[in-house]
Amino acid sequence: MNITDHRLVAKKEYQSKLKLKQKIERYYKNQAVKNGLKSLDKIQAYLPSEYKLQQMRRGIAFAHLDLEIILELMASKKEFTVISGLNPSSSLHLGHKSLFDLLVGLQQLGGRVFIPVTNDESYVERKAVSLAESRKQSYESVIPDIIALGLKPSKTHIFVDSDYPDLYNFAMHLSKYITIKEVEAAFGEKSLQNPGQVFYRSVVQMAQILLPQLPEFGGPKPTLIPVGIDQHPYVLLARDVAKKLKLVPPSELVIKLQQSLQDPQQKMSGSKPKTALYLTDNRRQIKEKIKKAYTGSVSSLDIHQQMGGLPEICSVFSLLNTYSPTDGLVKEVYDNYKNGSLRTDKLKNIVYNQVLKEITNHQRKRSQVTKNKIKRFLLKKPLRSFLNY
Amino acid sequence: MNITDHRLVAKKEYQSKLKLKQKIERYYKNQAVKNGLKSLDKIQAYLPSEYKLQQMRRGIAFAHLDLEIILELMASKKEFTVISGLNPSSSLHLGHKSLFDLLVGLQQLGGRVFIPVTNDESYVERKAVSLAESRKQSYESVIPDIIALGLKPSKTHIFVDSDYPDLYNFAMHLSKYITIKEVEAAFGEKSLQNPGQVFYRSVVQMAQILLPQLPEFGGPKPTLIPVGIDQHPYVLLARDVAKKLKLVPPSELVIKLQQSLQDPQQKMSGSKPKTALYLTDNRRQIKEKIKKAYTGSVSSLDIHQQMGGLPEICSVFSLLNTYSPTDGLVKEVYDNYKNGSLRTDKLKNIVYNQVLKEITNHQRKRSQVTKNKIKRFLLKKPLRSFLNY
Repeated sequence: MNITDHRLVAKKEYQSKLKLKQKIERYYKNQAVKNGLKSLDKIQAYLPSEYKLQQMRRGIAFAHLDLEIILELMASKKEFTVISGLNPSSSLHLGHKSLFDLLVGLQQLGGRVFIPVTNDESYVERKAVSLAESRKQSYESVIPDIIALGLKPSKTHIFVDSDYPDLYNFAMHLSKYITIKEVEAAFGEKSLQNPGQVFYRSVVQMAQILLPQLPEFGGPKPTLIPVGIDQHPYVLLARDVAKKLKLVPPSELVIKLQQSLQDPQQKMSGSKPKTALYLTDNRRQIKEKIKKAYTGSVSSLDIHQQMGGLPEICSVFSLLNTYSPTDGLVKEVYDNYKNGSLRTDKLKNIVYNQVLKEITNHQRKRSQVTKNKIKRFLLKKPLRSFLNY
Repeated sequence: MNITDHRLVAKKEYQSKLKLKQKIERYYKNQAVKNGLKSLDKIQAYLPSEYKLQQMRRGIAFAHLDLEIILELMASKKEFTVISGLNPSSSLHLGHKSLFDLLVGLQQLGGRVFIPVTNDESYVERKAVSLAESRKQSYESVIPDIIALGLKPSKTHIFVDSDYPDLYNFAMHLSKYITIKEVEAAFGEKSLQNPGQVFYRSVVQMAQILLPQLPEFGGPKPTLIPVGIDQHPYVLLARDVAKKLKLVPPSELVIKLQQSLQDPQQKMSGSKPKTALYLTDNRRQIKEKIKKAYTGSVSSLDIHQQMGGLPEICSVFSLLNTYSPTDGLVKEVYDNYKNGSLRTDKLKNIVYNQVLKEITNHQRKRSQVTKNKIKRFLLKKPLRSFLNY
């Protein structure tokens, strides 16, 4: 292959990456329209800067339902409630951290945070071989990681589903308000394999979402559910049932989940180690994964310099976009990468340093999370209001 | 209508009742064959008389699976385990009492008895408006009635599903061993309306059946499930899963449930007051219900005397058959009713006296059941073995 060929290949490569970028942008736009979600842009236009969380400024949170009522509570310095569940099927990775950083930000703005650790989901979805295993993973890996991320014990309520079986009573209570046909329509009949999965996806998830509106926690109130777009059906079902129960339909903040290190159309997945940077990864692993990561630039340097990169689909840039606290730096890197003046190897070096700092910091904090500290976060309150006569 | 016409009508009536008797006998025979159940006759032929419970001698228990291993334990004076759940959607009636009398008999022969009071079932099957209501019914009506029937607290473990939510963890654990297709095949896809019902019918019922085989209760062991034929699918599913879990497939004793006072093809139903004699009924109600009850005799006395009655489909005789402790009396009444020498009004009088004694006795015992006494029967043991790591 001579130089001209090489340049030709690189140009084709650029075109194909550009198409991919457009495809992904269309996907998110279509998802928002199809699901009746509102764009976050309009809200951001008039939102005071102190409420614009990093995840909003960087386009990571991109759509919502009823976010306004949460913003009103923020603006009047009143408490609001956030619920964000987590399937403990693997160690936490940077995709999880991104979501929990958002929760920390929301907590600083007045949010009381409920975190169901859904070890039953891991099991019935066959991501864990037993409830015992997914429970172990919850207490020994996932919860210490969550706590290390900086949530306050006085405003955070974590529970592992298996250790909070009152939740199943609430789920049973909710069963009357939803039909099997609705469940099948939401998730696809063929995806429902076993009875625990049917029960989990419909009413256990819903019980987690509606839990803070029980009398035990002060009754009906605005609540915010940050989710990836694939979890939107859960929120929709919960909003329907909330109306039937005279509760406040939960607000939704839709997040673009951290992209895979291998493929911009996929998400980081704990069960696919090459796609994700784990919070337990060491310097060498981080370096190696970033070195091999999918980027938004073509393989020919001079074509990159001529046509520029595509930061929007670059898994390396996306890490900086998610994790750098400095808007100015992110913009500068974006611009220079896009116009081709920043080389991929330089980008990788910047991001490696950012990620290494992020993960090293986390590991230091994580080493300070004791069993006693964990206890201060665990929700124990019995759920009885729908059982009392 | 002249006398000849009248006699003609009565003869036709007899023929139609005879057909009904044959139809019902065929039904039970077909059910036994279709479901691969074994007849109880063979076992009874060699069973020592002290193990022939009243319900076996009277043909109320009529078929079984693996009853032999339970009889061996009885014969060697070893403990065995019996599980019999109860849906608390109404006050108890004589149909329930018949089953619990069997449990008392089994307990006297060495049985340790587990009684799940399935208030969640009442709710998800829409026989109670709320979990609270079905829970109230459990503690204020059903459990005091059960205890008054004579079970021993040291060998009886009662729990109300809503107050024993560890059961749901076990149900989740069992979910991996059964598919939605199997659940649909067992109960009919169309009968499954809401997610709680799917979860209940499959794995919650199964958790109740397999519970005594958990390490918490000493591990795998023979267990006996007395059921009506309509509950056979539950036992079959549990036997399949027991094999996968290396537990002992539960033995089954199939009972003819107490027939309706209105229709020999139906069962007494708590939600249809005319079909049932409740344990709370008074003298007047008992008299009235027996007076109006469906019998096995025709409307013409001389045809009855000529052709005889059909005790097999007579709801009045069936009460005597279930409740009289005296085999000789039952046989005498059966013979005389069948050959026409016993008139229906006399039969009703004998049965009224038997039932009145039965219910009055029960009400006296029931009035002595205190809240403290109830506590001694309640199962509280946590279920953790499948969660421990």
